[in-house]
Amino acid sequence: MQTLNVALGDRSYPIHIGRNLLGNPQLILPYLKRKQVAIVTNTTVAPLYLQKLAQPLRDSGVSVIEVILPDGEAYKNSETLNLIYDALLQNRCERNTTLVALGGGVIGDLTGYAAATYLRGVPFIQVPTTLLAQVDSSVGGKTGINHPLGKNMIGAFYQPQVVLADIATLETLPSRELAAGLAEVIKYGLIRDIDFFEWLESNMPLLNALNTDVMSYAIYRSCQNKAEVVAVDERESGERALLNLGHTFGHAIENAMGYGVWLHGEAVAAGTMMAADLSRRMGWLTVGDVSRMAAIFKAANLPVTPPDLGAEKYLDLMGLDKKVVDGKIRLVLQQGIGKSVVTGDYDAEALNATLSMSC
Amino acid sequence: MQTLNVALGDRSYPIHIGRNLLGNPQLILPYLKRKQVAIVTNTTVAPLYLQKLAQPLRDSGVSVIEVILPDGEAYKNSETLNLIYDALLQNRCERNTTLVALGGGVIGDLTGYAAATYLRGVPFIQVPTTLLAQVDSSVGGKTGINHPLGKNMIGAFYQPQVVLADIATLETLPSRELAAGLAEVIKYGLIRDIDFFEWLESNMPLLNALNTDVMSYAIYRSCQNKAEVVAVDERESGERALLNLGHTFGHAIENAMGYGVWLHGEAVAAGTMMAADLSRRMGWLTVGDVSRMAAIFKAANLPVTPPDLGAEKYLDLMGLDKKVVDGKIRLVLQQGIGKSVVTGDYDAEALNATLSMSC
Repeated sequence: MQTLNVALGDRSYPIHIGRNLLGNPQLILPYLKRKQVAIVTNTTVAPLYLQKLAQPLRDSGVSVIEVILPDGEAYKNSETLNLIYDALLQNRCERNTTLVALGGGVIGDLTGYAAATYLRGVPFIQVPTTLLAQVDSSVGGKTGINHPLGKNMIGAFYQPQVVLADIATLETLPSRELAAGLAEVIKYGLIRDIDFFEWLESNMPLLNALNTDVMSYAIYRSCQNKAEVVAVDERESGERALLNLGHTFGHAIENAMGYGVWLHGEAVAAGTMMAADLSRRMGWLTVGDVSRMAAIFKAANLPVTPPDLGAEKYLDLMGLDKKVVDGKIRLVLQQGIGKSVVTGDYDAEALNATLSMSC
Repeated sequence: MQTLNVALGDRSYPIHIGRNLLGNPQLILPYLKRKQVAIVTNTTVAPLYLQKLAQPLRDSGVSVIEVILPDGEAYKNSETLNLIYDALLQNRCERNTTLVALGGGVIGDLTGYAAATYLRGVPFIQVPTTLLAQVDSSVGGKTGINHPLGKNMIGAFYQPQVVLADIATLETLPSRELAAGLAEVIKYGLIRDIDFFEWLESNMPLLNALNTDVMSYAIYRSCQNKAEVVAVDERESGERALLNLGHTFGHAIENAMGYGVWLHGEAVAAGTMMAADLSRRMGWLTVGDVSRMAAIFKAANLPVTPPDLGAEKYLDLMGLDKKVVDGKIRLVLQQGIGKSVVTGDYDAEALNATLSMSC
């Protein structure tokens, strides 16, 4: 087991990475203020992992409330959030009850937001069971829900007590979701870590095959990269925006296609290629760089061609994005592999050309 | 105009107290990150004060969005919260849009919670128009909404940029609501400030008559007392619980009677007399102390007799309260006038006696 410390002052917490961590209550017990937890999971994950997590806790004298939600991004909304609140209130959960998120990013975001807001804040622990959640939503404290008018519009910054990233849970992950997680792994290389990018180019077959050591290292280094960015910019005012490479375009894709039709990581991959296309048009990336980016996404079984929505629809959807500053759309673009920048200083014509074509 | 600084490190903010502050945009402009505000108010306050606040801002070049909600505690729920989110999203409000709460405690709590959670946090300013909101919800950063199973169950701690307590707005306040605000003012004297309590005993007629100097001083000293408590205990783990004198009983009364039937301050007054009754049964207050407390509440036109719900219903409703620690109901009780304590160390029989009778 490897452990990474996310340094955030008095909100610091460890991420444990390894195989079969779920069944080890010693990783959780030290963080409980009271021997009561509410495990929040979904109908897909519950039959696979809920009792593996819950039973050892019960055997250690912990009272466990189970909250099983419907599965899918479409349920990341206020109605599902209310199901969590209802369960907590019906069980008279108090400020020292710990919420445990067992599942992917949707479960993590919903549970973290419920923890941030139930009784104005209760402790929570994340047990991410998808690669995406392990390398992305387990670091950074972003929690929240979608709104009919936009993704992640309602939320809070709220940090967990501890994160358990159990590699064994990836064995039941559908291949599309594994690929979607790899999109975010690749992103860390692209934005700030060319050595990691090149390591990923060499090791993609082993990652696809779920090799334990290689996957553990990829998760560790991804979380480390994200933690370094978040540590200097917890509230997303500056450098943290780099983590949104491909996301402004990607959110527009997800929104237009209907949440859940494209997986988040798939939209990020195609969105990153749109950012690459715009960067190339600005003269910041070579054709060779763009090809290399397309190659690694393809090796990870990810889409590199965005849907043709037309420029107008893209712009409209992108205008709702949180990264808009004073009405000007700032984008994360590439100035070489391993170096992203956040900038509003790009050519509007070039952006239109990128949005108008399948790049 | 008097100004009190609420010291909370990098979340410190000033409270300005005086007459006719609403129409002075210079008190607001320095805090805007961008010249755009969304003023959230209700159907009662809007015709009285919305344009007095909005027009001078517009004249100063600020874009003003108006969000007018239905009035009443019954609307402090997720449906009304969504009306705020909808307005912000429809107007494409961004992270540098400032929310302004113009109204009483319900508007402040709803708006503050919307600000805490919209795009994971936008700035907000409070312009409380009731005495209760000026002396209570304008200090401490508590925001949130009710849930069908309990009051204030969902929320966040979130501080405003600045608070404007405009005495002139109290002239249109119904007399029952003025009295409800005085319940909280009296509370500060009871829990920690006997000098203020005695000043209030002498000045109650002038407070009832809305004398400007006397009312300004009462608001200033109330906020100062609350700010001192909150400064050492922002997250409500210890001393801050003293502020809940009368509230555990009071919330049970509000809940049982239906939110909004008893005003919050009325329930707190009667709840404080229940706490006084229990304190007397424990030998911590004299009969004379209890009479003195009843006299000041009566002078402020407040009820001192709680509804007879029966002990069982009181206990049931109190069990849901946030102040429950490990299943044991901790209460704020009196050990003399000007000295409250938070304790679970009272006699269960005495509590039952208090709950079983009109005290």
